[in-house]
Amino acid sequence: MSTLNVVAKPGEAQLEMARVFDAPRELVFKAYTDATLVPRWWGPRYLTTTVDKLEARSGGSWRFVQRAPDGGIHAFHGVYHDVTAPERLVYTFEYEGMPGHVMLETVVFEDMGGKTRVVVGGAFQSAADRDGMIESGMEEGAEESNQRLDELLAELKLN
Amino acid sequence: MSTLNVVAKPGEAQLEMARVFDAPRELVFKAYTDATLVPRWWGPRYLTTTVDKLEARSGGSWRFVQRAPDGGIHAFHGVYHDVTAPERLVYTFEYEGMPGHVMLETVVFEDMGGKTRVVVGGAFQSAADRDGMIESGMEEGAEESNQRLDELLAELKLN
Repeated sequence: MSTLNVVAKPGEAQLEMARVFDAPRELVFKAYTDATLVPRWWGPRYLTTTVDKLEARSGGSWRFVQRAPDGGIHAFHGVYHDVTAPERLVYTFEYEGMPGHVMLETVVFEDMGGKTRVVVGGAFQSAADRDGMIESGMEEGAEESNQRLDELLAELKLN
Repeated sequence: MSTLNVVAKPGEAQLEMARVFDAPRELVFKAYTDATLVPRWWGPRYLTTTVDKLEARSGGSWRFVQRAPDGGIHAFHGVYHDVTAPERLVYTFEYEGMPGHVMLETVVFEDMGGKTRVVVGGAFQSAADRDGMIESGMEEGAEESNQRLDELLAELKLN
């Protein structure tokens, strides 16, 4: 099984997460940028994610909404700054529950001959913002999404 | 005369610039967000800056174009993520000559009783991106803009 590798040096406002997926990068890139596929892997299983907006082009916006079984809603949005299929995505990320706290995310899809290494770099406004994100359970949350993405990619590869 | 204080720790992807302006923060904030005022201070004196777009609201876009005497053109654009007058601006910054290299800028306007301390925080995608920006003459460029802003604010205070 693939493992998530997180690098977050003390006192810095950056973090990096890397993980290998057993699928060609065209497919992994598609899972990130196709509005019908995102709800099938983005976020934890117990939440229902809907895509309000996903304009995968430079200058386009995105907004994803998560609904909990108890009716609670969490929404996230941002703007794409680079969409270079199947290599690279750059977008901002903002949790609407904490407006004004913005992260800049750069996702690089590395071709490993049938497999794909996805490297997610996050640039935060401060080390405190980054540490808050880590303490909120980011790593476990990311790994749950990644496992859902594993399953989705396995299914897409069969079709 | 006010001096620019730049903090950029080695190997990190952040930088911070702070400087005091002799004007109330409402006026300084206005100089940052008014499309008729930006061309009067933004960028070096030998370039002519025009505002193509300045939608100072969360989700709004901005685009500034600099024209050199030899006809050369440099354009910059981004998206506002927070516009809280007269306290805070958050926006992305991208030089169109280097697409895909994006910076997240957070500008805080601190009230010092008639004077204003402006703290600009930049979050880059990598330390290399930040160092490239510094080596391009960022500090001298910023200070020239700041001196132009001093002059503009002095003029605005008379009116």
